[in-house]
Amino acid sequence: MDIIEKLINEFSKLPGVGRKNAIKYAYKIIAMEETEAKDFANTILEVKEKITFCTTCGNFTDVSPCALCVRVKNQKQICVIAEPKDIIFAKRIKDFEGGFHILHGTLSPLEGRGPNDIKIKELLVRVAEGSEVVIATNTDVEGEATAMYIAKILKPLGVKVTRLAQGISMGTDLEYADEVTLNHAFNQRKEI
Amino acid sequence: MDIIEKLINEFSKLPGVGRKNAIKYAYKIIAMEETEAKDFANTILEVKEKITFCTTCGNFTDVSPCALCVRVKNQKQICVIAEPKDIIFAKRIKDFEGGFHILHGTLSPLEGRGPNDIKIKELLVRVAEGSEVVIATNTDVEGEATAMYIAKILKPLGVKVTRLAQGISMGTDLEYADEVTLNHAFNQRKEI
Repeated sequence: MDIIEKLINEFSKLPGVGRKNAIKYAYKIIAMEETEAKDFANTILEVKEKITFCTTCGNFTDVSPCALCVRVKNQKQICVIAEPKDIIFAKRIKDFEGGFHILHGTLSPLEGRGPNDIKIKELLVRVAEGSEVVIATNTDVEGEATAMYIAKILKPLGVKVTRLAQGISMGTDLEYADEVTLNHAFNQRKEI
Repeated sequence: MDIIEKLINEFSKLPGVGRKNAIKYAYKIIAMEETEAKDFANTILEVKEKITFCTTCGNFTDVSPCALCVRVKNQKQICVIAEPKDIIFAKRIKDFEGGFHILHGTLSPLEGRGPNDIKIKELLVRVAEGSEVVIATNTDVEGEATAMYIAKILKPLGVKVTRLAQGISMGTDLEYADEVTLNHAFNQRKEI
């Protein structure tokens, strides 16, 4: 396989990228200045080399505890999200001063993911009586089931469990919520 | 700027990639196996290191003359295209046995690109009396103007100049033509 075809193939591995877009991206790389393309490649290498999990929240980070954990003002509040990329969307909640906790998945009986396959134990050690856990998993079936399960586990421990208010429409991924809706949903969060 | 944000920024530089897709791509890289991500980065570096222009046709290649020039069966036929990426689409023409010539642009008075800014001189030295030049530039205004200009220059030299038959609808980029239409257009090509 020639080298350009190889680069097209690499781009095809990205989510949602078909052959035509992969060709566009590959030729963009070829047309780039040498230093610009090198920066691109080196950033990929740097990310793979430096990124680990934050030992506190489970976020991808190059320092542990991560920048978000260091910045926490309210230790009693934890916002629970499913995937690392959701943090980019969840951190737009302006009134939230607590920390994050990334589950790295949701419960899914269909795909065989139970409580031990996601970071729920790690959440348990972070909460104390009087804590509030705001669950911001997606509003799909798996996200809802995960929220319910966590609520069931935490409530007996004297932890207040809340969920972002509906306002984010059912079935919508967190990343598609606009900022106003997202902030409104945070302020209207309800105990479950 | 943190390293993940830096990677998101790099992906945002690709044509048509907005922030949400850039986030998806960046997190895909983070989720990849170490070796897979390294292959990706190294392919980018390899492309930048090895790819030069074919001295014959102007194609991007890592060997000169390029694989397409080596494979030419009919030296008297040259298919002229505007951009290197078009070669991926043009080489699907099954009945064509000649070589390619990449102009690296089209004539555009509006953007100040004249005949000396694209590889027309390089085309002149490749043709001889009795050659056929098949012009496969896009069917937009610039592509048509470029075809007309080349025809005007080459015809007095005894070169037959043809154009892919209309069938590819006006204003459509070459890359969006399906294979049947493209091959039909080649077989119905007409002298201009």
